[in-house]
Order: sequence, then structure tokens, then C-alpha cells
Amino acid sequence: MTNAHLRPDAPMVHVDWPDGTSGDFPFIWLRDNDPAGFHPETHERVADLTAVSLDIRVTKVQADGNFLTLWWQDGDTPSRFDLTWLRGHLPGRRAHDPARTGFAPWRADLGRDRVPRIQADEILLSDAALQDWLIQTQRHGLSVVAGLRADPEAGMEIARRIGFLRETNFGITFEVKSKPNPNNLAYTPIALPLHTDLTNQELPPGFQFLHCLANEATGGGSLFCDGYAVAEDLRQSDPEAFEMLSTVSIPFRFHDAVTDIRNRKKVINLDEDGQVIEICFNAHLADFFDLAPDLMTPYYRAYRQVMQMTRDPSYLVRFKLTGGEMVVFDNRRVLHGRDAFDPQTGFRHLRGCYVDRGEFESRIRVLSRSRDPRIC
Amino acid sequence: MTNAHLRPDAPMVHVDWPDGTSGDFPFIWLRDNDPAGFHPETHERVADLTAVSLDIRVTKVQADGNFLTLWWQDGDTPSRFDLTWLRGHLPGRRAHDPARTGFAPWRADLGRDRVPRIQADEILLSDAALQDWLIQTQRHGLSVVAGLRADPEAGMEIARRIGFLRETNFGITFEVKSKPNPNNLAYTPIALPLHTDLTNQELPPGFQFLHCLANEATGGGSLFCDGYAVAEDLRQSDPEAFEMLSTVSIPFRFHDAVTDIRNRKKVINLDEDGQVIEICFNAHLADFFDLAPDLMTPYYRAYRQVMQMTRDPSYLVRFKLTGGEMVVFDNRRVLHGRDAFDPQTGFRHLRGCYVDRGEFESRIRVLSRSRDPRIC
Repeated sequence: MTNAHLRPDAPMVHVDWPDGTSGDFPFIWLRDNDPAGFHPETHERVADLTAVSLDIRVTKVQADGNFLTLWWQDGDTPSRFDLTWLRGHLPGRRAHDPARTGFAPWRADLGRDRVPRIQADEILLSDAALQDWLIQTQRHGLSVVAGLRADPEAGMEIARRIGFLRETNFGITFEVKSKPNPNNLAYTPIALPLHTDLTNQELPPGFQFLHCLANEATGGGSLFCDGYAVAEDLRQSDPEAFEMLSTVSIPFRFHDAVTDIRNRKKVINLDEDGQVIEICFNAHLADFFDLAPDLMTPYYRAYRQVMQMTRDPSYLVRFKLTGGEMVVFDNRRVLHGRDAFDPQTGFRHLRGCYVDRGEFESRIRVLSRSRDPRIC
Repeated sequence: MTNAHLRPDAPMVHVDWPDGTSGDFPFIWLRDNDPAGFHPETHERVADLTAVSLDIRVTKVQADGNFLTLWWQDGDTPSRFDLTWLRGHLPGRRAHDPARTGFAPWRADLGRDRVPRIQADEILLSDAALQDWLIQTQRHGLSVVAGLRADPEAGMEIARRIGFLRETNFGITFEVKSKPNPNNLAYTPIALPLHTDLTNQELPPGFQFLHCLANEATGGGSLFCDGYAVAEDLRQSDPEAFEMLSTVSIPFRFHDAVTDIRNRKKVINLDEDGQVIEICFNAHLADFFDLAPDLMTPYYRAYRQVMQMTRDPSYLVRFKLTGGEMVVFDNRRVLHGRDAFDPQTGFRHLRGCYVDRGEFESRIRVLSRSRDPRIC
């Protein structure tokens, strides 16, 4: 049976669940999150926190069946909480999120044959297949979709199963082929060392989709490297370089006739718990470093160290896309590159687009609703 | 005359300009930024840093007219730098950026009459007017465009003069009017306390455009508050609250039938120099705080403090938009709200869209090219 009591030493309600879980719920938190304070249709909070005293007090608490009832000193209507919901929202613990499926870092031993692979039709026809594919793609940061129709829209149609496409200065979609007067190295036939795209943007695009319409030229193989694996290895092998790259930002810039987009980014970005959540690495778009002169040499040492790791065959997975295949990867985690190709020997044409992490994770959450009883 | 010499104590070139400017340029920086290492068409860096030794050395340097020439110990082709360009890229100093025009914080004394105001036709017909308007809008975070055609596209046409529109789960554009089955409080007739939009997104939208097509109902006035002013005042008056709000993140969430977008954000966001660069404040979208129980009361104290400040008349500018006017504001700086309105007394319809800071700043930079000789 669930027990609840007022803590004698702090303005909190203490709850013990039969399964051994226990939690402390501050009075002000309980008042702010009273289910009665939310709009019934939009689920948004409408209760006004400024109308509540900071030292609001609960005078009595009662756990009864599946509900916790609280009586307030200010005489307001008692609040009623679902005890299962409360257990899922313990202060001090992150609530369950079906879109946090964990990351599986990989190195060359992943091999091209173990890159997650799915048929386009499965994604188009089945929500369950879509969900499983999204989770695999998030875990590895990389997957291949096969069996696409020979239609320039076929890849974008898959991407739109997740959400709307992220527009950038290169458009909603972009054509990766050799062009006259290129404004980006992707539009030349030269080799592209491993990089992440659009590090000059405040929010570089999340998942990238490259649908191969033709790849008949000599060369033009694709390379991938898990930036999370590189960063974690660097954290162990060279903590000084890791510290430098995760605390000092550098300027990035892209400019052409109609655009001049600049931003500062760190090469390695950590969340509040110190976990790597983003890699920004693009030597083409790196602007002129503006660090203090004495910081420059140690920074270059760290930066060059990562650059060398991203080219080390022990981190690389390499395969050549063929017409009807599409590679999908987390552009803020997995670096991509390509071998040079010879446009005289055949046509090479990839069609690309992006879907940001926000839409990607949202789709996982919504698809999880029918399967996961913990979702409210 | 410009003088340059090799520093005897460090691997750097020291340059003294006739105007008294001087700078130290590390050898590795000079090699990485050799103009010959960039693609002539895309301006992207193609030279490979891993092919350069970290202890690369300059053996001789010569300043001659407007150029600095460097001879390398490894016998590579000497590098040639434009001395004016070098002066604009001193290590340790941020390069000039025409899109950093400075912020003018404001409080109630700005008054509705001093909000920057421009005619739609000027923006549509003149690049110089567009540039001046963008700079004013960036400085104050708020402006009004008047004289729009009575056409639902008229406001979006102005926004597209800057760049493409930022799509969100509410669409590329959105209609702010009372609707049945609302999924957002904006789509009800109730009052909206001061907030910034879409704090549940990893990158909340930058500039917001609200084109008033009709505002004939009783009520429905607009409120604005400069979050930068609030934050700077809080930094002085309550450093503990400022510290809490600028270091501890809280969860935000929006969910409806097809969407579930969650992110953690800090209410006050600082850049590396400690300057306030973003405010995320939205009590409707704030998810259940998951801080440790002991942190909860001090956090609520700080959070409630800001909430009270954003409603304090000494920070507010209030005006009622009329048909043909559009308000434009930096959604990551200026909080907006509205008075309740009575849909029985008349029609109220605003049409909205967003353009992100990246596109906004890019447009300022590109427009500055013809006017500012410092742009390369």
C-alpha cells in the first residue's frame, strides 16, 4: 500500500510506493503541477504561479487507492494527483522519454554489413517498422534504406514519414552532383574529407538523407565515422584535447552571393551531465580562428588530433551507394565524406534533405504511445 | 610603414601597423589560413591541416607595401597575406561582423510611440530601407510595420524579404484566432501572459511576425517586455536568482495528437562572455520540473521572480494592433502577451510566421556589403 506523509523538517510531501520507490515532493511543485491548473484541451499550464505564495503549505495528505489528495493551508480546493503519474515524475529524476533510446557507439568493426538496413516499402506501409527503423537509426546514428523507387521524390517521401524537412540556404532539398560555378565543395567532384554539414548554422541540421539516384562514375564511395566514438576515445586518450575542444568555441562561416551565415560552435558539445551530444567538425567551413595567440597552438594540436582520428581507418565504415539506396545519418554525430569521382566515367547524383532531431524524436514518442503504457 | 618580424620567444610573426595596431600570428594559424589553401569558387578551405607539422616554422618574413610574405622551413611555396585583411583578423580579437549592431535594452519608458515604425512599401522597394529596418529591429528586438495590403500574404511577403520562413509543428505560417478544439492557448480567446514562443524546441524560433488582419473585438491588446532588460536588472538586484536561472535547465514540452516535442532550456542563456543572448520563458509549455527536491524551492523563487518582473508595468509596452499593421520581434529576447478578447464583439485575426536569427543576420551582412568596405 502506498504511504504518504508531510515531512517534519522540510516543506515537502514524502511518498513511499509498495515497490520500494520513494520520493519527496516540494509543496510549491505540487501546487504548480496540480492537474486542475492545466487547460483541458491544449494540456498547457494556465494556473498562475505568481498568485501562489512561495511558502504555500500542505496541511494534510492522504494516499487512497491510486490517488494522493492534498489539503492546502490557504483553503483552496484540495488537489488530487494520480499516484502512478507522481511515481513517473519524481523530483531529482528525469522523467521517462521513449525518444531516449541510448546510443551505440561504433568503429570500423561495425562494417558495412552491420549498418542497419531496411526496405523503403516497410517504412512507408508500417508504423511499427517506421518506429523500429527510427530507433535503430538513432542508436547507431546511421542506416541504409533500400529499394527506393527511381523517382527523385522517393527519398523525400521517406523523410516526410518522420516530419517536415528542414530548410536551409541550400533549399528544402539539394542535389549533390558536379555543377558549374559551385558554391559548395559537395557540388564539385573532389574528395570530401569527413565532416558534419552546416556547422556555420546555430542549429546544424539533424538527420541527413542522401538518396542515390545514380552512382556510375569511377570513385564516389561514401565514408562514415561515428563522432561520438571518436570523442569518447579522445576523452580517455587525451583529456587535455577533449577539454579544449569541449570548452573553446571557434567561428564557422558560409558565404556566397546571397548568404553570409556565421556562428561559433564547439567541436565537441556536452550536455549538463557531461555526455557528448553533438559534434561540429567541418574544416571547409571553419572560419579564421580568433583565439588568443597563446591558446592557438594547443587548440590546433587538439583540433588536428580529432581530424586525424576521423580519418583513421579504425573508425571508418566505407561503402558505395547504388541507385535506389538512401543513407540516413545523424549529421550532428556521424561525420560523412566521399572519395573523389571522375565525372567523365559516369553520372553521380545524390538528392539530399534534412529532418531535425526535434521532429525525429517527436515521431518516436508519438509512435510509442500505442506500445508504451508509461506515456501519458 | 608596416613592420613584421619573427618573435624570438614564440612560434609567431609579430606585425606592427602604422596606426598603432599590432598582432601576434602563430605560424600554424598562418599556414592554416594561407589564401592559397581555399577553393577559388566556394571560398571553402581545401588545404589539409593533417599534412602540416604542428611545429611548422617560418624562416623569414617581409612586409612589403600591402602584403606580408612568409617563407616556410619545409620549403613550401611562400605564403602571401593582404596586410589589411590580417589587421581585421587579429588572433584574440573577434573579427568585425556587420550583423552585430548592439542591443538597446528598453523598459516601459520606450513607450508605444518610440517603437521603431516603418512603412511596408519602403521595405519592399528599397534595400537600404530594409537594412535600416533590420538593424533597428535587432537593436530593440521590436518594431511595427504599417501600411500592409489587406491580403493574408502581405506580412509573409515582408518576412521573405529577409529569408525563408522557419517551419514548425504549427506550420510555415499560423493563424492566431479563436478556434474550436485548440491545441495551443494562442488559439483561444483567453489572456496570454508574457512569454516567448516554442521554448520546447531545441532552437526556439528567432524573429516573429504577426500581421494583424483584423482586431475588432473588445480587448485583444498586445503586450511586450524586453527580456534582456529584465535579465540585466535581475543580475544586479538578485544575483542568486540570475545565477540559478542561467545555469539550471528545466524541461519544456508541447504535445498534441501528432506531436510530442520536448527539450531542456535555461530561462536565461549567456554567451561565452557572460552576455545575455536568449530568454526562454513560457509557463504554459514548462514541463514538470525535475530538479532535486532541495533545489526546487530556490529555483521556484528565482523563476517566480522573473515571472513577476515580466508582468511589472515598469517593463511593459502595450498597444493594440489594427488591421494592416504587423509587429515584428525577436522571440528569443522580447516576451509577448495579449489581453483577453471577447470573440462575440468582433473578429480578431493575426497571421504569423518566423524567420530565424541566422537568416536575419545573413541578410544584414549581405546588405552591408555595398556600404561597408571592411567586408571581404
